[in-house]
Amino acid sequence: MILRIDRVQAELPPPSDPDPVGAAAVQELMGGRFGEMSTFMNYTMQSFNFRNKAGARPFYDLIANIAAEEYGHIELVSATINTMLTGGSPVGDKPKFKKGALKKLEGMPNPQQAIGGGQGTLVQDSHGRPWTGDNVFSSGDLVEDLTHNFFLETGARNNKLKVYEMVDHPAARALTGYLLIRGGVHQVAYARALELLTGADLTKMFPTPRIPTDKIPESKKHMKTGEHLKLYRFSPDDYREIVAVFKGNHPETGEPLEVVDEAPKGFEPNDLPSQSAVFAPDYAPEEIAQIAEKLRKDAGL
Amino acid sequence: MILRIDRVQAELPPPSDPDPVGAAAVQELMGGRFGEMSTFMNYTMQSFNFRNKAGARPFYDLIANIAAEEYGHIELVSATINTMLTGGSPVGDKPKFKKGALKKLEGMPNPQQAIGGGQGTLVQDSHGRPWTGDNVFSSGDLVEDLTHNFFLETGARNNKLKVYEMVDHPAARALTGYLLIRGGVHQVAYARALELLTGADLTKMFPTPRIPTDKIPESKKHMKTGEHLKLYRFSPDDYREIVAVFKGNHPETGEPLEVVDEAPKGFEPNDLPSQSAVFAPDYAPEEIAQIAEKLRKDAGL
Amino acid sequence: MILRIDRVQAELPPPSDPDPVGAAAVQELMGGRFGEMSTFMNYTMQSFNFRNKAGARPFYDLIANIAAEEYGHIELVSATINTMLTGGSPVGDKPKFKKGALKKLEGMPNPQQAIGGGQGTLVQDSHGRPWTGDNVFSSGDLVEDLTHNFFLETGARNNKLKVYEMVDHPAARALTGYLLIRGGVHQVAYARALELLTGADLTKMFPTPRIPTDKIPESKKHMKTGEHLKLYRFSPDDYREIVAVFKGNHPETGEPLEVVDEAPKGFEPNDLPSQSAVFAPDYAPEEIAQIAEKLRKDAGL
Amino acid sequence: MILRIDRVQAELPPPSDPDPVGAAAVQELMGGRFGEMSTFMNYTMQSFNFRNKAGARPFYDLIANIAAEEYGHIELVSATINTMLTGGSPVGDKPKFKKGALKKLEGMPNPQQAIGGGQGTLVQDSHGRPWTGDNVFSSGDLVEDLTHNFFLETGARNNKLKVYEMVDHPAARALTGYLLIRGGVHQVAYARALELLTGADLTKMFPTPRIPTDKIPESKKHMKTGEHLKLYRFSPDDYREIVAVFKGNHPETGEPLEVVDEAPKGFEPNDLPSQSAVFAPDYAPEEIAQIAEKLRKDAGL
Amino acid sequence: MILRIDRVQAELPPPSDPDPVGAAAVQELMGGRFGEMSTFMNYTMQSFNFRNKAGARPFYDLIANIAAEEYGHIELVSATINTMLTGGSPVGDKPKFKKGALKKLEGMPNPQQAIGGGQGTLVQDSHGRPWTGDNVFSSGDLVEDLTHNFFLETGARNNKLKVYEMVDHPAARALTGYLLIRGGVHQVAYARALELLTGADLTKMFPTPRIPTDKIPESKKHMKTGEHLKLYRFSPDDYREIVAVFKGNHPETGEPLEVVDEAPKGFEPNDLPSQSAVFAPDYAPEEIAQIAEKLRKDAGL
Amino acid sequence: MILRIDRVQAELPPPSDPDPVGAAAVQELMGGRFGEMSTFMNYTMQSFNFRNKAGARPFYDLIANIAAEEYGHIELVSATINTMLTGGSPVGDKPKFKKGALKKLEGMPNPQQAIGGGQGTLVQDSHGRPWTGDNVFSSGDLVEDLTHNFFLETGARNNKLKVYEMVDHPAARALTGYLLIRGGVHQVAYARALELLTGADLTKMFPTPRIPTDKIPESKKHMKTGEHLKLYRFSPDDYREIVAVFKGNHPETGEPLEVVDEAPKGFEPNDLPSQSAVFAPDYAPEEIAQIAEKLRKDAGL
Repeated sequence: MILRIDRVQAELPPPSDPDPVGAAAVQELMGGRFGEMSTFMNYTMQSFNFRNKAGARPFYDLIANIAAEEYGHIELVSATINTMLTGGSPVGDKPKFKKGALKKLEGMPNPQQAIGGGQGTLVQDSHGRPWTGDNVFSSGDLVEDLTHNFFLETGARNNKLKVYEMVDHPAARALTGYLLIRGGVHQVAYARALELLTGADLTKMFPTPRIPTDKIPESKKHMKTGEHLKLYRFSPDDYREIVAVFKGNHPETGEPLEVVDEAPKGFEPNDLPSQSAVFAPDYAPEEIAQIAEKLRKDAGL
Repeated sequence: MILRIDRVQAELPPPSDPDPVGAAAVQELMGGRFGEMSTFMNYTMQSFNFRNKAGARPFYDLIANIAAEEYGHIELVSATINTMLTGGSPVGDKPKFKKGALKKLEGMPNPQQAIGGGQGTLVQDSHGRPWTGDNVFSSGDLVEDLTHNFFLETGARNNKLKVYEMVDHPAARALTGYLLIRGGVHQVAYARALELLTGADLTKMFPTPRIPTDKIPESKKHMKTGEHLKLYRFSPDDYREIVAVFKGNHPETGEPLEVVDEAPKGFEPNDLPSQSAVFAPDYAPEEIAQIAEKLRKDAGL
Repeated sequence: MILRIDRVQAELPPPSDPDPVGAAAVQELMGGRFGEMSTFMNYTMQSFNFRNKAGARPFYDLIANIAAEEYGHIELVSATINTMLTGGSPVGDKPKFKKGALKKLEGMPNPQQAIGGGQGTLVQDSHGRPWTGDNVFSSGDLVEDLTHNFFLETGARNNKLKVYEMVDHPAARALTGYLLIRGGVHQVAYARALELLTGADLTKMFPTPRIPTDKIPESKKHMKTGEHLKLYRFSPDDYREIVAVFKGNHPETGEPLEVVDEAPKGFEPNDLPSQSAVFAPDYAPEEIAQIAEKLRKDAGL
Repeated sequence: MILRIDRVQAELPPPSDPDPVGAAAVQELMGGRFGEMSTFMNYTMQSFNFRNKAGARPFYDLIANIAAEEYGHIELVSATINTMLTGGSPVGDKPKFKKGALKKLEGMPNPQQAIGGGQGTLVQDSHGRPWTGDNVFSSGDLVEDLTHNFFLETGARNNKLKVYEMVDHPAARALTGYLLIRGGVHQVAYARALELLTGADLTKMFPTPRIPTDKIPESKKHMKTGEHLKLYRFSPDDYREIVAVFKGNHPETGEPLEVVDEAPKGFEPNDLPSQSAVFAPDYAPEEIAQIAEKLRKDAGL
Repeated sequence: MILRIDRVQAELPPPSDPDPVGAAAVQELMGGRFGEMSTFMNYTMQSFNFRNKAGARPFYDLIANIAAEEYGHIELVSATINTMLTGGSPVGDKPKFKKGALKKLEGMPNPQQAIGGGQGTLVQDSHGRPWTGDNVFSSGDLVEDLTHNFFLETGARNNKLKVYEMVDHPAARALTGYLLIRGGVHQVAYARALELLTGADLTKMFPTPRIPTDKIPESKKHMKTGEHLKLYRFSPDDYREIVAVFKGNHPETGEPLEVVDEAPKGFEPNDLPSQSAVFAPDYAPEEIAQIAEKLRKDAGL
Repeated sequence: MILRIDRVQAELPPPSDPDPVGAAAVQELMGGRFGEMSTFMNYTMQSFNFRNKAGARPFYDLIANIAAEEYGHIELVSATINTMLTGGSPVGDKPKFKKGALKKLEGMPNPQQAIGGGQGTLVQDSHGRPWTGDNVFSSGDLVEDLTHNFFLETGARNNKLKVYEMVDHPAARALTGYLLIRGGVHQVAYARALELLTGADLTKMFPTPRIPTDKIPESKKHMKTGEHLKLYRFSPDDYREIVAVFKGNHPETGEPLEVVDEAPKGFEPNDLPSQSAVFAPDYAPEEIAQIAEKLRKDAGL
């Protein structure tokens, strides 16, 4: 079970110039083989399929808890894409029909973001192909699953850096700068788990790929607050045994790793404005707002 | 963001006779077009893509909050499948290699559950095809999204009843009996939201499909505790405006609908036993248990 | 069984400037989830799978008859795309090989239209992905199928308007203006069928999505001739019971709905010119024409 | 445009013993690469994409007209599958809920036929994978398209014979016996077209594959009425130039080929009975029947 | 470029009882995510995409050379499947048509092996889904690619053992016994390469998964001849620098690893008999044989 | 089994201006339905699935031997794409991190070439969709397989010419000019095989499609050295019976066809430079080079 909190894990800039071309690239971080849907669903399914949890609790807790953080990552990627698409058609609430309102978006690389959607995120990759369950590896074998997860985070960091270098929209840069740091923590966590189980020291491979996060301003910012060292516990009461695995020093900086015994506070998400030309949330958003207002009153809110 | 709780929303029976044929059918409720991955990800993405939340808060809260409950449903379906697969190869921890250990599973309809997995759940449907992002509808248009959601719950209930009638394993029956009731609540919620927005009274279509839940013992059980009337709030602090929409009487029984201002307590999940022949969690689970024990001690747990 | 008539349901303008970027967007209306392949094949399969037709004839007739009209829609969408691609390489019959003849098409969003095809339509969506049978919903349950169909037409109208706003090629505008009107008729038909079966009045949701068709010149034109009110019977002798369902007034205009007891007369399709650089219909079309001429003579035509 | 006729091209036996295993194999003839969806949609799209029809009319007419016949083939395959699935759950109209009503279908190779459908046909192949637009070849090059079509019919005949030999349900045998004959006619037609265009005599390859249709009772029956020699014109007025191509003698029997200037009369399709356990057409079909009866009366039918 | 040799890398038993159910499971080793198509094409593409080979020759040679061996593995898996399918319909050359000749294969898990094929191998997995290029990882980053390859071989060994335990047909056992050994060599090779590049000692993870190959008779047999220690050079002249990487001792047995400077001699493949009922290689194979005989004579062979 | 040779079949120009748009089109020749993966894997699988080779040896040898040549074609296509992508980010070895290093590639049609890859080839088509095993036809019926292969080569030549006309990068032109010639040889070979087996003379269809290769400078060049007439034997000792089939004159030029009893000598492939911004082969390629140098020394190379 989960409880949902209406906040996001990192601060994103408000909408600025629309960037549908960049937004198509960011989709790779949503629905690509190494996107956040993959990290989220891999760890989620591995935790669901875990047998004999009692006998291997610290490892179960690690995987289950990182899965919970990853949910926040698909949320962030989606918020980024939506921010980048905002303004692609006239922003605002006024009900109006104007011929050619989407002309500016013609030729956008992922047209379904606007034809089927409301200038919104798709569960697709940068080629416009859907994320699929084939991206999930859940063998039930703990060492294999951890090996996979280490590899998955490696590939994911590769993809994130590439998007950082390719797309210069501030929301994309803020996103990738943050995810590089958090992905790095997960990579360390899985390497440490493998070391404790088998003796193989994968931390010698760090950084892998060789990304100099300390030269990336949008990442460096999070290193200053120690985000590259902390594993948060995303649960009111459970997953307490992660401390048995996530320990020692960071392989790149030598600083001590740290378990934070609660979820991060997060940030108020930007409430992105209506795009009435794509019916988001309607052709006449203010009429919905009036209905909502009345319902709130009736409910005594 | 989410917080994860290590409990499940319904009680499932412990493993009994393995039923890989039935487990293949239950996969439809996991990764089929109308499976729980679809309800979970549809509402999740619709909430991510929602524009101008401030102006339509009660509707945003409704969709976002139901999305949170659906996470618990993919968890339950997975637990059911894993329960049904338990015992397909020799259960237990003893490290041993025995020729033909999986012979009993040859010809199982979804062989990847055992060849690639540890007698575990796949993110696939009953035909062994992966769930894909193409199953997500998120137009950004509130009325369209709600119309879709009403239809999705309708199709989902159809599928659940069919699995109930086809598979007699007690775990499958417990699962479907429960999901029929909860899916019914969501169906009512979306119908009510549409009515409040447009005036169209979809409750006249209930039950749709015409499933007599009160004649299904595994559903009836949950009606006695009022599960067919309650919408839980799955958040510490957010989504409080669902009360503005989920109100009035149940279209089938006439009883008053009710918002419960917290998540249900849930149940301790069964810790399914090792299946060492499929390396779940290892060929020699007790060695992992020893390592884990030592790590726990080191961490002072 | 069908009889085929070599005419199209709406008049399209002749080829003008080629528009491969727009043509890629129009592909969504061919092979997208809400494209015409979907409406055509959904109603076709539902009519094939209908059980106990004798007991529910008016509803069977409605679905089967609308299926027949939808065939004409895939034809129209294809004609539109082909019109928009005409001229992308040198038009005409002269056999000639010229280096770089397709240079102008490099970077077109759906390159298979020219690499594999003869500047022709693909059974794909706007992302270059094929239409699939997964887009068909045919539960056999009449109320569910009708609920689906109402939702499908809703999503389809959304997509059509988006393409209308995004693409300004006259053929695309003529197509979408027409399809918005006809899709609206089908939406009303399914809403009415549901009302007669269950009492739920979906017409209160109209227009859904809230498209002001009377402000769209290419749609308005067809409203003047009453195309928004008429359901044609596409059969020499069958499907006569549609009159039992398609009746009452149009929910938006209040005018009376009307069953026309024959198919519309249609229009002579444009015979699009050869594009010999893509071998359509050949590198040297006039040689084929000579062979054809001789064959005609031999056959006394 | 098409006109639809509520008759089928061949007579099928009424439902007898249900055969879900055989029905799964017959799905290959529906949605497989060489199934009827492929023949139907290949020729349909080739006719839509045909450029300079005026210059190559006899060939355009041939492809367009065979496309029309193929629609009747998907209809027949669907009717066969539905016949074979009839009786898999209790047949009849009485509204009743009975636990385990689908137990007999558990383990059926294509469970979605019943879980998602009403014991009905899917747009899928024998592996439960959807037909896709990737199965369509439409190059625009007349000689290439005809070469493809000849090959497609060759592969299709292979598949039909295999299903004939694998499945002994009388409906499957009646279907494949008939389709082998009609597919043979199309194969001859495309071979003849190629010969007339290029001089290459493909009729020397007949029969290909080497199927002795005259030893197959269910095919022989149709040869007696000359079905192996006739090309029907499926149109009130169009496609008259097929006579310029379909001529000469049959390569296997030496008998003269014949163009029939109208569609075959066809047969009244079996109205398959309700399967209320799968909601087809409802849980309580007789209630729908009452509504329908009233609507008919109101409409003066 | 390649040269092809008409021999196979391991000896397989001749056909015995047909086993279509087991053959469906073996398909996972052909077209599954961890099947031999994946190992073959991953290393092949990584070698094609390798940049600056001169600077990293030993690593390029390693990957390119293992790719060559993997071609022999898809060949072996296919030979195994075909062996297991032999006899599913009457074996032999006599041209005959017999109703129900494939009845014995009805309900086989991968019906396309016979409906579309000649009782032959498909490029599919055990669920009947095609291998796809999405299974290829080729990042261009040497360390990442090697990490992937180590993980891929780990997963592949898991799948092979599962098939070994599930299927008892002697051909399947011979195949998996052999592939477990050769896959192990590749796993060691990639671990060694990573160690030399980064210092991380992955050999501490062996065996991974924990398969006791020395207790598997069909594997043990190959260990006796040292197959678990040898890396063959599959090239007349190239890839000589593999010796710079493949060295040291085997992590499980402590024996020295060895580069063999030529390809293994291999074995004469079984020439599987005709299956005329599925037209393999024809309905009347002896007629083809006569033609072939004449052609040979004409060519002086 | 195969032996691999580190040479390519045709000479490609060195990298010049990067052309990611053209490279996306060339992907069609890699992973499209008619790309080289398809020719390679079709003939490979047909040779694996061949039954009773002894009875039809000349035909088996023909298919198996052409399969071997096709491997060299996927290699060439990949080399072409990689050449065209070289320089898309700064070329060279110096380790450096530079913001926006991939900005130039934003909006490239196949972004995964850079986001997931190292400016390298994907196993995908021009729409960014993966090649799949569904592209393989292997019926086991010799005449059908040959008919398919003739058609496949026909379609492949069509695609190659289109890419030639669309993309003017010198590497793409060199590639397609060469492949048109070699594809033509295979087309003739399959036509000849069919003629010898059935008597049908498909050579009358040549050229098909009607490509005037002698007017294409990049093809003409290879005709001068007789590449359009030669079938090479790609094996040290096997496939000697191809001479029994590949004989007679070329249908277009009338010159005698020729079997060359060894593989062509080929060309040294270009060693494409590092692209450190995409980690190919690393962020700091010269460090790998130092390690490699040391390993070479240690191994006495």
